[in-house]
Amino acid sequence: MPRWKPGAVDRLQTAALELFDEQGFERTTVAEIVQRAGLTQRTFFNHFADKREVLFGLSSELQREIIGEIAAADAALPPLEVVMRALGAVADKLLEHRRAVVAHRYAVIAANPELMERELGKNAALTDAIAAALRERGGDADAAYLAASVAMLAEQVAFRAWTRPDETRALRDLLQDALHAVRTTVDAADRPLPA
Amino acid sequence: MPRWKPGAVDRLQTAALELFDEQGFERTTVAEIVQRAGLTQRTFFNHFADKREVLFGLSSELQREIIGEIAAADAALPPLEVVMRALGAVADKLLEHRRAVVAHRYAVIAANPELMERELGKNAALTDAIAAALRERGGDADAAYLAASVAMLAEQVAFRAWTRPDETRALRDLLQDALHAVRTTVDAADRPLPA
Repeated sequence: MPRWKPGAVDRLQTAALELFDEQGFERTTVAEIVQRAGLTQRTFFNHFADKREVLFGLSSELQREIIGEIAAADAALPPLEVVMRALGAVADKLLEHRRAVVAHRYAVIAANPELMERELGKNAALTDAIAAALRERGGDADAAYLAASVAMLAEQVAFRAWTRPDETRALRDLLQDALHAVRTTVDAADRPLPA
Repeated sequence: MPRWKPGAVDRLQTAALELFDEQGFERTTVAEIVQRAGLTQRTFFNHFADKREVLFGLSSELQREIIGEIAAADAALPPLEVVMRALGAVADKLLEHRRAVVAHRYAVIAANPELMERELGKNAALTDAIAAALRERGGDADAAYLAASVAMLAEQVAFRAWTRPDETRALRDLLQDALHAVRTTVDAADRPLPA
């Protein structure tokens, strides 16, 4: 793993997003991205395995920070609360000040089914990593997976709202609203299914 | 769209699963699948766009049935309950009697990241279709998406349990347990995040 270089990564991502907008994801080459960013192909491939990965550069940093927050959490907290606090802290630290570029990145991904599948795969891997981190705190495997999955559902609901042009609230606040909305939804329907 | 032919589809899927087990997904060709199934390539391509899609043949039928159940549901039911009833009914109708082959299919998919991304994409598309069907009943868009997402989370938790070799309960019952577990998880953690 190369050392994380925020300057180069941010420049490559900004250049890539501009080009994907101008000419589409499929027709953009790595050579064009590095030329626009004023960097070399070597630098590009130090950070990203391929053109698709330039859109997912933040994923591994996000995951590392979230797992670190979970490992450091108060042992007495219930698992879902541990994950919600971790997501809130990482939203403040890594996402809130990058709102425009993160929303732009998401719009590019949402417009391309292949990229959306990769995004969903990254989210599933993050869910599994969160569940593993919860199990290391001593929890049951099924409860850990469930807490990780519910938290990631709240994250996705909050993220959709946060990336809308007319939404101004912080991701942390939207996360809290999303969890509350999940609870309201579930409370309205938790009855036995008819046979 | 060709007419749905359960005989040909089931034979192609069984043949494909056998070959994916014996020699791996990557090394299996469409020619080998149709030979094993005793059918022609033309029949294969009447039903599936490519080799990956042979694993996802049930998806469109599942989606059609689920959407049909939602459209026919009692107008007074809360949205999540509408979706849970639809998932339970379709589990009984299309999945329960195919437990071994569905579990086998899922094991093949889980072993291949590219297939898993496709599976996640299909689940996301189903979530969107369910949300759209709920909106047609007159609901709010955010509430519809939330109900669809919570139901699909319960479906995934239940499905993971249902495909375990040591699990004998019906998917319908596991769905109910999963929703109850979501509620327990959320109730333990729905407090404001610390600033």
